[in-house]
Amino acid sequence: MRITDIIRKKRDGFALSREEIEFFINGFVKGEIKDYQASALLMAIYFNDMDERETFDLTKAMLDSGDKVDLSKIDGVKVDKHSTGGVGDKTTLVSAPIAAACGVKIAKMSGRGLGHTGGTIDKLESIPNFRTDINGREFFDIVSKTGICITGQSGNLCPADKKLYALRDVTETVDKICLIASSIMSKKLACGSDKILLDVKTGSGAFMKDFDDAKRLAELMVKIGNSAGKKTKALITDMDIPLGNAIGNSLEVIEAVDTLCGKGPEDLEQVCIELAANMILLAQGADLEKCRQMARQAVKDGSALEKLAQTVEAQGGDRNYICDTKRFKKADFERQVKSPADGYVVKTDTEKIGVASVHLGAGRETKEDKIDFAAGIILKKKTGDSVSKGETIAVLYSEHEEYLEAAEKELLCAFTFGSTSPEKRPHILASVE
Amino acid sequence: MRITDIIRKKRDGFALSREEIEFFINGFVKGEIKDYQASALLMAIYFNDMDERETFDLTKAMLDSGDKVDLSKIDGVKVDKHSTGGVGDKTTLVSAPIAAACGVKIAKMSGRGLGHTGGTIDKLESIPNFRTDINGREFFDIVSKTGICITGQSGNLCPADKKLYALRDVTETVDKICLIASSIMSKKLACGSDKILLDVKTGSGAFMKDFDDAKRLAELMVKIGNSAGKKTKALITDMDIPLGNAIGNSLEVIEAVDTLCGKGPEDLEQVCIELAANMILLAQGADLEKCRQMARQAVKDGSALEKLAQTVEAQGGDRNYICDTKRFKKADFERQVKSPADGYVVKTDTEKIGVASVHLGAGRETKEDKIDFAAGIILKKKTGDSVSKGETIAVLYSEHEEYLEAAEKELLCAFTFGSTSPEKRPHILASVE
Repeated sequence: MRITDIIRKKRDGFALSREEIEFFINGFVKGEIKDYQASALLMAIYFNDMDERETFDLTKAMLDSGDKVDLSKIDGVKVDKHSTGGVGDKTTLVSAPIAAACGVKIAKMSGRGLGHTGGTIDKLESIPNFRTDINGREFFDIVSKTGICITGQSGNLCPADKKLYALRDVTETVDKICLIASSIMSKKLACGSDKILLDVKTGSGAFMKDFDDAKRLAELMVKIGNSAGKKTKALITDMDIPLGNAIGNSLEVIEAVDTLCGKGPEDLEQVCIELAANMILLAQGADLEKCRQMARQAVKDGSALEKLAQTVEAQGGDRNYICDTKRFKKADFERQVKSPADGYVVKTDTEKIGVASVHLGAGRETKEDKIDFAAGIILKKKTGDSVSKGETIAVLYSEHEEYLEAAEKELLCAFTFGSTSPEKRPHILASVE
Repeated sequence: MRITDIIRKKRDGFALSREEIEFFINGFVKGEIKDYQASALLMAIYFNDMDERETFDLTKAMLDSGDKVDLSKIDGVKVDKHSTGGVGDKTTLVSAPIAAACGVKIAKMSGRGLGHTGGTIDKLESIPNFRTDINGREFFDIVSKTGICITGQSGNLCPADKKLYALRDVTETVDKICLIASSIMSKKLACGSDKILLDVKTGSGAFMKDFDDAKRLAELMVKIGNSAGKKTKALITDMDIPLGNAIGNSLEVIEAVDTLCGKGPEDLEQVCIELAANMILLAQGADLEKCRQMARQAVKDGSALEKLAQTVEAQGGDRNYICDTKRFKKADFERQVKSPADGYVVKTDTEKIGVASVHLGAGRETKEDKIDFAAGIILKKKTGDSVSKGETIAVLYSEHEEYLEAAEKELLCAFTFGSTSPEKRPHILASVE
């Protein structure tokens, strides 16, 4: 078998066989197939796509390229949750403790933020001494005891995906549904949970700007998961507007705690209850409405908040920060951003709001950038809200006064004002299973 | 400017600006733009093409990436001739001496053979002591004195094309007309002749199998040459059938000499007279029919043959091999290939015949392969000829007896026999200027 024949076949619009896909992935990981050949093939895939069978085979080949986590020794049903990423997306911090409080086991590997989206690991690390490098025996022990452990990616999981993603990132071959689906699902399958809940975001702050693309991605990932023998379900949720009001690491932890106390923003609460209910449903197979009631009850009786506090403690963090979020350090500088107009917020470019938070120091432009945990944005007005000229629409926080200017500019660019209130879009747009 | 933005722009179907093309070519030559990004861009170009203006700019950027030969100190009009390559294509060995005998100056850089096509340099090197590494002062002196010098590619001409072609070769991005045209024309323009005659081959033994593709390539190259201020003309000639009967290095030199003696195969003679006549036309501007007469006269009076002998002598070779081609060493082994059927040769897969000659040792599969000068094929039957079962259709020559078997098999696969004589196709299909 020759890689040039495989490139030519895909270039000319034919489907690749399982053997050809395995030959490519294995040769690429070993370095026998060169980056320049892999990128030519990726661009040919970009144009000529992969069918479902090819995408399954690609996922499997990447999954088989490295280690797989074995969670079978942990009692109970292990449910993984994955979000495709958005602005202000702190749903794991809320939904995982709720589900765990209802008996679901969550052994989760999370990532760091890059570009306009934040990462769960960064958010958790804003809690002093919280450790995200928990592996092996300790990881199993924490999941068994508290029901949740959230760790950074570790071990040699899906090295093919790691190498391929790095190449896609610099060759403009990221935005392709078959490649996105196989990349996400190979990692999810390697993590060893029994069931998988996907939160596919769509709208101006998501990677999938378009609902139909989000739906296709969700359907494909659900099929991949189910065909690999792991019951998988996806919710398609709105990311046309930031989720909740807080964007930034410790700011989002604080908002997550508020939500677990029943005092969070309505959109965030609704999405988190729905995610938690679906995790419970996947684990326990009851009916969904009953699972929603269980989730709401875990918020009401404080058991979900206690679960988060236990998790923080088990992972080395100070649980007092959860009990009293005033302990979090405030940023040294803040600025009120004022509305330039009377009327309504009719639209936000949510990706731009994410970029503004990066300008403030809350995120990374490159993998090497350091982040400031206290930096970020609290939105005072969101799409649909009425505003008066001069009224505060957001408060910016940064450790560097000089960062505020660019962030304010970016944020103002992100807002569109108008004279009529826009139609409301639901927070949960669809579910796919 | 960022290469990722340029890849994305081409991927999304937009034309690249001149500045973007220059940024790509310059960065690629310097190694600042990586092979894996260049190959992704090449594949995007494969799918979304380049328009004429982009192709001109690509040609110019590659031309400007290295040195340019200055032939202005040589008196007379310098005409370059380029063939896109085929099987049995020894036209340079015939047409260049004819044109030079008629006063045209030919300062030519030629290439080596690779794959199913041979190269002029290899053919000339079958003449003992013939030197193809002639540069600078000596090159000018030979052109000035004898009217022709044919040398291998030397100097730092079009390094961008060299590097890009090597990448295209291993990423299945060779077959694209805009890339082929800019590659050929950047080198032709760097070689410094005043006028350019292109011989674009089409048919089963050519890179352009299809006439319409050959025509598009010819038209594009002619436009590029003319827009760069060098009068350029193209002939589209048949390569559905090998040209002449001889395939292999010394075998082709012998056939070229026969043709210069007026005893060559009819197809080869016709194509060579037409090429030579067009070179004379480009140099001297007379009418084409008169140029044809001049060319025929140079064969008849022996001046063209003498010009070849002078060239061989000037480049260190033994002119006695031209005067008496029996001096060429014969291959140690030969085999007669017999017709398996009565009837007519209705078709040949000429690329396969080229591959058979490579099996015999006459060509290279990789750049590192050595070639046997005496190896090759003499065709006794070509498309349109009648055959009887058991009659010899070709004689194979090799220095290795064990090579004969595979070559015979390949050759027999290349022939299609039938009961009716196929329609004749002209040797010269079109001209473009």
